[in-house]
Amino acid sequence: MLSKAGCPKTMLSIKDALEALEGRWKLLILFSLAESPKRFKQISKEVTGITDKTLSKELKSLEANKLVSRDVYDTFPPTVEYSITPHGLSLEKVLDELHFWGLAHRKKVIGK
Amino acid sequence: MLSKAGCPKTMLSIKDALEALEGRWKLLILFSLAESPKRFKQISKEVTGITDKTLSKELKSLEANKLVSRDVYDTFPPTVEYSITPHGLSLEKVLDELHFWGLAHRKKVIGK
Repeated sequence: MLSKAGCPKTMLSIKDALEALEGRWKLLILFSLAESPKRFKQISKEVTGITDKTLSKELKSLEANKLVSRDVYDTFPPTVEYSITPHGLSLEKVLDELHFWGLAHRKKVIGK
Repeated sequence: MLSKAGCPKTMLSIKDALEALEGRWKLLILFSLAESPKRFKQISKEVTGITDKTLSKELKSLEANKLVSRDVYDTFPPTVEYSITPHGLSLEKVLDELHFWGLAHRKKVIGK
């Protein structure tokens, strides 16, 4: 049985988390940035299937939630890099558990 | 640093998990059903903010992913109950970690 199953207060915090991480892309972007800070095009290449428009929108939302920071370097032309914040890194355990569950789910439902 | 950060194979399993659990509702529905099997109206009441149309769609998707089972009882009129499957219960650790992270996130970003 899930701990505190059905408890409204626990449901609220799960809802907060899901709203900050909504959609199928945000955690994948964070996972990519956890390796190292990256430029827009690098992230776009690594997160297979995401469009540039969606990536741009998701990065802004991640910035607003203090999960990603956007750093502009004074080069010519200016360089922009995205990096994961300490708050973003605190999602490590969530990502780990999703990884383990995703493996089990693929075996059970997708069957390969 | 996130374990195996950036690794394409790990990213695939996280993507699988996120696709099965996409949106802000599925985990909340599962969390509600983890307490006990429930009828449609009970779930609708507990998962604050969900519309009946969305709940119906989400329950079908959860059934297809073997996370929820729909049980029809031969009463008059027939009773329909939804319950979480053992595969659904295997999300316990994911939900726990989301709960802890959601608490920290509320403190940090929402500030209350």
